[in-house]
Amino acid sequence: MGHDLAELERPKAKKSVALSGVVAGNTAISSVSPVGDALRYRGYDILDLAEECTFEEIAHLLIHGGLPTSTKLASYTAKLHALRGLPLAVRRTLEALPAAAHPMDVLRTGVSALGCTLPEAVDQDGAGARDIADRLIASAGSMLFYWHHYASKGRIIDVETDDETVGGHFLRLLHGGNPRQAHVRAMQASLVLYAEHELNASTFTARSIVATGSDFYSAIVGAIGALRGTRHGGANQAALEVMARYADADEAEADIRRRIAAKEMVMGFGHPVYTTVDPRSKILKPLARRLAREAGDMRVFDIAERIEAVMAETKGMFPNVDWYTAAVYHLLGVPRGMFTPLFAIGRIAGWTAHIIEQRQDNKIVRPTAHYIGPESRSFVPLAKRGSERAASRAA
Amino acid sequence: MGHDLAELERPKAKKSVALSGVVAGNTAISSVSPVGDALRYRGYDILDLAEECTFEEIAHLLIHGGLPTSTKLASYTAKLHALRGLPLAVRRTLEALPAAAHPMDVLRTGVSALGCTLPEAVDQDGAGARDIADRLIASAGSMLFYWHHYASKGRIIDVETDDETVGGHFLRLLHGGNPRQAHVRAMQASLVLYAEHELNASTFTARSIVATGSDFYSAIVGAIGALRGTRHGGANQAALEVMARYADADEAEADIRRRIAAKEMVMGFGHPVYTTVDPRSKILKPLARRLAREAGDMRVFDIAERIEAVMAETKGMFPNVDWYTAAVYHLLGVPRGMFTPLFAIGRIAGWTAHIIEQRQDNKIVRPTAHYIGPESRSFVPLAKRGSERAASRAA
Repeated sequence: MGHDLAELERPKAKKSVALSGVVAGNTAISSVSPVGDALRYRGYDILDLAEECTFEEIAHLLIHGGLPTSTKLASYTAKLHALRGLPLAVRRTLEALPAAAHPMDVLRTGVSALGCTLPEAVDQDGAGARDIADRLIASAGSMLFYWHHYASKGRIIDVETDDETVGGHFLRLLHGGNPRQAHVRAMQASLVLYAEHELNASTFTARSIVATGSDFYSAIVGAIGALRGTRHGGANQAALEVMARYADADEAEADIRRRIAAKEMVMGFGHPVYTTVDPRSKILKPLARRLAREAGDMRVFDIAERIEAVMAETKGMFPNVDWYTAAVYHLLGVPRGMFTPLFAIGRIAGWTAHIIEQRQDNKIVRPTAHYIGPESRSFVPLAKRGSERAASRAA
Repeated sequence: MGHDLAELERPKAKKSVALSGVVAGNTAISSVSPVGDALRYRGYDILDLAEECTFEEIAHLLIHGGLPTSTKLASYTAKLHALRGLPLAVRRTLEALPAAAHPMDVLRTGVSALGCTLPEAVDQDGAGARDIADRLIASAGSMLFYWHHYASKGRIIDVETDDETVGGHFLRLLHGGNPRQAHVRAMQASLVLYAEHELNASTFTARSIVATGSDFYSAIVGAIGALRGTRHGGANQAALEVMARYADADEAEADIRRRIAAKEMVMGFGHPVYTTVDPRSKILKPLARRLAREAGDMRVFDIAERIEAVMAETKGMFPNVDWYTAAVYHLLGVPRGMFTPLFAIGRIAGWTAHIIEQRQDNKIVRPTAHYIGPESRSFVPLAKRGSERAASRAA
């Protein structure tokens, strides 16, 4: 995860990750090389996957266990198309939510309402969970834009479009017209790169929830809540807020140097697992550059690249996945509030694989704490507490 | 937590708790003695607290840091009374949810919708989080019964009652009339005993979520999802389902002996932390007996007590918090689906204390996994996957 920015926010506290390096279980879903030379989904290098695969292929790889054949991919894509609609109860719920809500809160609520409406019948082989995962990947964009257009303009949109891909569906609901193919491909690549990253905080949350015997929706809802934080998925929105505040790269460089000197941190850099490079940048940076050239608008890309150079020179730090993803989403015309929900749509694939794996593992997650509070205190009944100020204070 | 029943469900797998005994951080909120001679909230023995305190005093102890004086308790109680109402967006959301939904899913959705409507402005001193916690404790019952009466009977109820306590408010919304004082006291005691239990699975989930920098509602929503599982809060509903299936204690004994011989597990017994007794039973068992005598209906209590004796004799196991709580709630006329939501109302106090503590600790929770999947696999492009069946299967 390029978005665990704990070290950056507290630069002097190196021990800012709880359970860092502690093995919480086994996984066969992805492997991370800390030196950044490889991130693999079920053994496949993500550089190959991001260059060659649609997001649907990767969702199939993670949720259904393998890369699909052409025939299988066609039927899987058709299945996802058929799941874009929203049940009435979910639409009514989304209509109730205010226009000022954060899209991540809306997504969390919409998924939770779907769990009330089409609850999971927990089974041993995970077929029910896989079906719900497919529905969520297909309809998360529907939820977000059904709410967005209704809350902001009172307009009811048709969410069941004919777009081929999840990325195309999202872009059409956002912009209204035919999305450009280059934009769809960029969106798909970003979803592929966001799809999975071992025991990051939201995935670990999803596993902890389902480990109690709870249902699939509860795990996803909790994971959405964890992803929302700025040290995790929220970092992509925060990264654009950094880039967007400058008129050009020179202004960015001057201000970032000043902030570094003042010990401020910069969102979008560094990583709790990688030490030299985040391999996802190898795809995302050229992608952002290409989109910027096509748009004839290099401002944000140039700013992003200059800040990268300054961070490397002064701090030896490298951009994480969120840095150039932020530039890509900006160039696709995505509003900032929708950046982290896009991360969620991609990561649903990984969360699902982990939820199914956790159920097979069948262990509840229950660490312990080191107690540092008061030892035995004498209880004072209410009637005698009046004059004892000490009794009303925590130790 | 008396509800982590992993060992019981897989009696041969002793290593059924992930991170068991691993210290995930410091806490000053509660301390657990594994031999079951003490559970303390901020240093106070829960036997004193459950006998002497209202739930409001314990919520104040956990959320606001100390036992209140009489004056402070009066103003805190008044604050909670004023927070029983539900914003329009939350009512509209609850109206959208089907009557067949699980009440835990409804509570999860209602809290999530509240987070869209009255979002948290995250502050450093935790005042905003405490205010939201108070609102949730005051209005969780409102959410549950607003939905329940609307969905099942189309009836809109007034949730802003004049009841003194959280327990009284819940019982009035449930039954409609004046709750009996003995019932209110029993409900309050159960909420006190459910309020806090160190790094149980739902509390650890709440801490993991907020550790990413996410908001208070996201943490509570995730915790509700974790509590829902039958190895955690869902065990109280499951425990009554055990007791309720027998006509009398003799039938219960015969069937439980048969199930033990068949290596089946019985919900409501054993504990991942306590080894000899769950101290909360010392309050809950006499409470259940008293309520049963007052009701002139000993059936469920007698069954519960007989199963306790059989489990002790045959397995050396003791009832956990959920066993006699289930009998208590049954005797208070609470429908089974509302058992775990009551656990949630109590535990919001503990979750809140841990969320605030986690923010001060300021560490993201990010363990690692042991990778057991395929090492490097060669990528096969879609066009060439047709005949390779291996490529469509997970390793």
